[in-house]
Amino acid sequence: MLLHLCTWPEVEAYLTQSSGIILPIGSTEQHGPTGLIGTDAICAEVVAKGVGEAANALVGPTINVGMALHHTAFPGSMTLRPSTMIAVIQDYLTPLVRHGFTRFFFVNGHGGNIATLKAAFAEAYTALAHDHIPNAERVRCKTANWFMARSVYTLAKELYGDQEGSHATPSEVALTQYAYPDFIKQATLEPQVAPSGHAIYSPTDFRLRYPDGRMGSNPALATPEHGQQLYEAAVKELTSDYLAFLAAD
Amino acid sequence: MLLHLCTWPEVEAYLTQSSGIILPIGSTEQHGPTGLIGTDAICAEVVAKGVGEAANALVGPTINVGMALHHTAFPGSMTLRPSTMIAVIQDYLTPLVRHGFTRFFFVNGHGGNIATLKAAFAEAYTALAHDHIPNAERVRCKTANWFMARSVYTLAKELYGDQEGSHATPSEVALTQYAYPDFIKQATLEPQVAPSGHAIYSPTDFRLRYPDGRMGSNPALATPEHGQQLYEAAVKELTSDYLAFLAAD
Amino acid sequence: MLLHLCTWPEVEAYLTQSSGIILPIGSTEQHGPTGLIGTDAICAEVVAKGVGEAANALVGPTINVGMALHHTAFPGSMTLRPSTMIAVIQDYLTPLVRHGFTRFFFVNGHGGNIATLKAAFAEAYTALAHDHIPNAERVRCKTANWFMARSVYTLAKELYGDQEGSHATPSEVALTQYAYPDFIKQATLEPQVAPSGHAIYSPTDFRLRYPDGRMGSNPALATPEHGQQLYEAAVKELTSDYLAFLAAD
Amino acid sequence: MLLHLCTWPEVEAYLTQSSGIILPIGSTEQHGPTGLIGTDAICAEVVAKGVGEAANALVGPTINVGMALHHTAFPGSMTLRPSTMIAVIQDYLTPLVRHGFTRFFFVNGHGGNIATLKAAFAEAYTALAHDHIPNAERVRCKTANWFMARSVYTLAKELYGDQEGSHATPSEVALTQYAYPDFIKQATLEPQVAPSGHAIYSPTDFRLRYPDGRMGSNPALATPEHGQQLYEAAVKELTSDYLAFLAAD
Amino acid sequence: MLLHLCTWPEVEAYLTQSSGIILPIGSTEQHGPTGLIGTDAICAEVVAKGVGEAANALVGPTINVGMALHHTAFPGSMTLRPSTMIAVIQDYLTPLVRHGFTRFFFVNGHGGNIATLKAAFAEAYTALAHDHIPNAERVRCKTANWFMARSVYTLAKELYGDQEGSHATPSEVALTQYAYPDFIKQATLEPQVAPSGHAIYSPTDFRLRYPDGRMGSNPALATPEHGQQLYEAAVKELTSDYLAFLAAD
Amino acid sequence: MLLHLCTWPEVEAYLTQSSGIILPIGSTEQHGPTGLIGTDAICAEVVAKGVGEAANALVGPTINVGMALHHTAFPGSMTLRPSTMIAVIQDYLTPLVRHGFTRFFFVNGHGGNIATLKAAFAEAYTALAHDHIPNAERVRCKTANWFMARSVYTLAKELYGDQEGSHATPSEVALTQYAYPDFIKQATLEPQVAPSGHAIYSPTDFRLRYPDGRMGSNPALATPEHGQQLYEAAVKELTSDYLAFLAAD
Repeated sequence: MLLHLCTWPEVEAYLTQSSGIILPIGSTEQHGPTGLIGTDAICAEVVAKGVGEAANALVGPTINVGMALHHTAFPGSMTLRPSTMIAVIQDYLTPLVRHGFTRFFFVNGHGGNIATLKAAFAEAYTALAHDHIPNAERVRCKTANWFMARSVYTLAKELYGDQEGSHATPSEVALTQYAYPDFIKQATLEPQVAPSGHAIYSPTDFRLRYPDGRMGSNPALATPEHGQQLYEAAVKELTSDYLAFLAAD
Repeated sequence: MLLHLCTWPEVEAYLTQSSGIILPIGSTEQHGPTGLIGTDAICAEVVAKGVGEAANALVGPTINVGMALHHTAFPGSMTLRPSTMIAVIQDYLTPLVRHGFTRFFFVNGHGGNIATLKAAFAEAYTALAHDHIPNAERVRCKTANWFMARSVYTLAKELYGDQEGSHATPSEVALTQYAYPDFIKQATLEPQVAPSGHAIYSPTDFRLRYPDGRMGSNPALATPEHGQQLYEAAVKELTSDYLAFLAAD
Repeated sequence: MLLHLCTWPEVEAYLTQSSGIILPIGSTEQHGPTGLIGTDAICAEVVAKGVGEAANALVGPTINVGMALHHTAFPGSMTLRPSTMIAVIQDYLTPLVRHGFTRFFFVNGHGGNIATLKAAFAEAYTALAHDHIPNAERVRCKTANWFMARSVYTLAKELYGDQEGSHATPSEVALTQYAYPDFIKQATLEPQVAPSGHAIYSPTDFRLRYPDGRMGSNPALATPEHGQQLYEAAVKELTSDYLAFLAAD
Repeated sequence: MLLHLCTWPEVEAYLTQSSGIILPIGSTEQHGPTGLIGTDAICAEVVAKGVGEAANALVGPTINVGMALHHTAFPGSMTLRPSTMIAVIQDYLTPLVRHGFTRFFFVNGHGGNIATLKAAFAEAYTALAHDHIPNAERVRCKTANWFMARSVYTLAKELYGDQEGSHATPSEVALTQYAYPDFIKQATLEPQVAPSGHAIYSPTDFRLRYPDGRMGSNPALATPEHGQQLYEAAVKELTSDYLAFLAAD
Repeated sequence: MLLHLCTWPEVEAYLTQSSGIILPIGSTEQHGPTGLIGTDAICAEVVAKGVGEAANALVGPTINVGMALHHTAFPGSMTLRPSTMIAVIQDYLTPLVRHGFTRFFFVNGHGGNIATLKAAFAEAYTALAHDHIPNAERVRCKTANWFMARSVYTLAKELYGDQEGSHATPSEVALTQYAYPDFIKQATLEPQVAPSGHAIYSPTDFRLRYPDGRMGSNPALATPEHGQQLYEAAVKELTSDYLAFLAAD
Repeated sequence: MLLHLCTWPEVEAYLTQSSGIILPIGSTEQHGPTGLIGTDAICAEVVAKGVGEAANALVGPTINVGMALHHTAFPGSMTLRPSTMIAVIQDYLTPLVRHGFTRFFFVNGHGGNIATLKAAFAEAYTALAHDHIPNAERVRCKTANWFMARSVYTLAKELYGDQEGSHATPSEVALTQYAYPDFIKQATLEPQVAPSGHAIYSPTDFRLRYPDGRMGSNPALATPEHGQQLYEAAVKELTSDYLAFLAAD
């Protein structure tokens, strides 16, 4: 069930059955010469929809633009500042908690969001409590990174070994190829496996260290078939995680 | 061209041809007993994609959640506070202007966004100039409300007359039916035509005045065929508007 | 009754009779070669005082500086950023609502304030409700633009036709001439009727398009006698609007 | 010269002669049973206009609402939060510094503004420098409290001795009587001289300590004639201070 | 008792006896050629610990970095912007008030903090009340400037006369010498007594007026023995002030 | 070298040799029935001073209060909201970068700070670049968690095995016992090893799950001798890390 495709009475009815909602969060940022700029948002959205179907859960609108300040030296990269994202998360949660939602499961497609989401959840719990919103102290948020699910991670290592890397990875590229088979991009990757090992500092420094945007990866290994396997693993494991999250007392 | 389905070198190449980008902005809010909660985002996104194809223009990610504070007494409605949206718009524009974009065409699906967008544009122009970003003073933002395009408005009046209303209108419902024919909802509308004429104040007051969420409308008149007509009118007129916006000196 | 000329026990007494207050809001911005920088504040204040007398209503202090970012390339123009104005409005309302005021009638003299005021009202309703201030959900704010009152608008068209324009208009200049007959300024206007039709973007662009600050107007047509007529029309119509605003359930 | 009664070309001309501007700042807050709620704004505005005339200096719009959080338990008191006032001051200064103003002389009528103004000036100097606004590092702001001018203070002590007190003082009431002789209010003051000596904490606590709003004062001693004397002393001394402020290297 | 050296059950027990807490606040800023950058934090901390012992009061963590924007043109100076400090104070107070603390005694070592603290307290009282925190309206904050205690001030005048000055004073340097006898710095002071009498504006201007950072002082007069005398005077007087602050109804 | 014990000319001299600075960051929060509330700040400060001595590096003032919102249901816990900490970090860095510092090594004692620091660094890099501060794009920040240093972690596991837990751990308690041997607290721990495995949500929920504040730990195992071993391991490893951080191109 997609929130966008429901009416408000349908949401009201859903809330008599469940107080859980899935919120996909990605990013709009460079993913190397062949990766789609929407990679992280696409992956999060696709997996979240799969989990929503499998778990009969409501899926909210995708947060398309995440925390990608370090990628902004590449054309087309967009970002929220962390302080803006903290405000956005608080805004998103406030009315939904008033409506009765208390379990927020963020299916995340971007490593760069993790820290800010954690900060945002802490700030939101307290802001909700200060507003004396009923159930505020029972609210729980969880970040579920599809690419860090054990089964996904294991599969990626089997398929790509050290060439998985950490940005513009073959596994995320494969998942977008599965989702958008008409948008598989080709380009010469030079070197084949991108450099790695540099810490992330300013946007300018990032581009200096990672000239084509990839970090340690060889996305040329990706195939749509891999994408399907990764998708299925992610949906299965995150569905289980979501149900456990709901069931926890 | 969807930004999400491009690579960064493709964006770099695009920027040698054009400095324009289309950004769909909608809302996630109740649309009466039969309207989809995602109506405004769906309409904005569908029209923006149409314009992007017709004008060979880049279309950025959809801002799904808009300024809908007044709808938050209905389950499932989400919102940004205006001050948050001002920050979001500034964050979105800053890196894109650095990359070379200077013309931002917001295809808008929600009347409630218009005021805050206008405020946000003014604040962004000045913030960009204060940061001494090259071209900052040449940046232009325009809100293109698909539902206020002359041809769309005329068509809606022809089709629905006074029963068009101003929220959960048959025209926007028709457009979503065209876009998502599997998600046409049925419910008894009582009264057939919703009340109208009350000003908008607090969320609680809004729900008191407009108990099922509609404002002056009879969305039961909507059909997918109308939706197609409205879609085609909107795309045609907004494409023309976009091209004029780009061409203006 | 001006709030500034009352004591607090007088306000306490007033609140037993009425929960309405009139707040004038203008701007401090260039109005072309002959218009006063305080035009919008002067007009709002003068009309608000007239309405206050006619309706026996309390009139609060004038917000002199409005949202005029686009005028800031001209010497002497001042502004609040929209996000600052949102904070200011919230600060103004919070204690007054605690005291018992619930109907806020903003007599506005500046078109550039309208969007930000609308955003500010929405944000204030929710902030007041989150603070659990008694009556918060009954608070109502209304922007009453004196220059858009039907009778004023009609009169301006009769007097000036197409030379009314949209900034530094003869009608607003006339009203300041009526209010401050010793401060009627003369200057050569070249061209007689200012250019029009350019959208508003950055301050620098605005000055490029509208070199002397006027937009489509010929303020040389203004006379103090017109000003009196416009004043009387505005006060009459806005008094009626205010009383209707108070009386609405 | 009042900025509000100038055109922008007049301001442009003024800037070739002077880079100084006077900004009156007051408050809208209870002043006991007989003091006007606008006392601080009225006094600041009247004195500022006098200084402007004497020094041939530009006088900007009055900041009517100051930092009066501690007075908000009395009906009709309004306030800016300190953080809002800091933003307001920054907004006010930014365009004026771009236009060429560098010396800002705040004629202040409210003790409660002093601390926040000092904080705001420090924050503004740095913000202006960060924006690389020309002359930013030469900007100087000064708070001139009319009631603390030596000659005013001495005169008040002569006239009222210990009954001057520190809020709703006879000297400020006298000045408003001189400015608005038709608005002299009468009420029984009980006790004749208000309590004093309690520190200022929360609004609720303030009202508990100072039940009618006065602090240590006996405003019944005020007369319009005193007001005139105080006005003349204040204008004379602050004119001298303003000229010294301008002349300092 | 230092909060840092207590367990939470010990704090819980303390709260059954007292609702007071001492918070040292200093600054990290240049103090001339021989003064320590931590002078203000060191002095505040040392005196606060002394008061805590004498009064059997809890002493919280030292706010090391204060409002020192005007000192930032000298290497090593750090600062909070006033708006940040307002947020910090609100954050500090909020949980402590929930725990039961209501009397906050800030032992301050830096004149530049006074104004911002005053603003911050006002904003915090209101924010706490808006959050409906129990006891919010009974919260009291007090700034106790050790260097302005009458006995300290008198002693400093006796010891140093006019060479005390107002920044990098011999009295504060002496106190740091007493606290850190191994860190007594020597340097040629030229002139022996620093210039004085210039108002404080931007950081750049400050350094121009006060080239080595001192303001009117001759810190070469300081000795550790003076430091001990000043320490003892400060602790004695502030202990008395703290106890009176606690005892006040 | 402690920044607090330096003069500004000494900092100026240091900057000719190094552009690195160490900033300790801890927290002020409950650490179970026997752990000190200042544990995280104490540990960070002690280790940072050790590293500063070993590496001949400047050590700035300790950030005593960190991000501990989840601990605030226990008396004595203090916190910054994440959005406040982001502002604080930006404020701290801005002048230091202007002075010439470009490598910021945060010795961190609190796991709860890690996410917010990461967000703050990203936001600071961009803010510094927007202000066009020289060297802004060369600024690098690194969080060095003493408790996650490999040698420390290994030693803690050897000493305590599974009873190390994750909050109020014997290793951090041991380090405070080494630093403050006179403040070793005794209390009955029931159960001996605290519960573990619950995710962290709201403060109220945290206290419900972890009634005495500990998470999975048995701090009764701590000894000052262990503390010394842990201290030495941490200083050695972080010194090496700091030098590598400085040396990296």
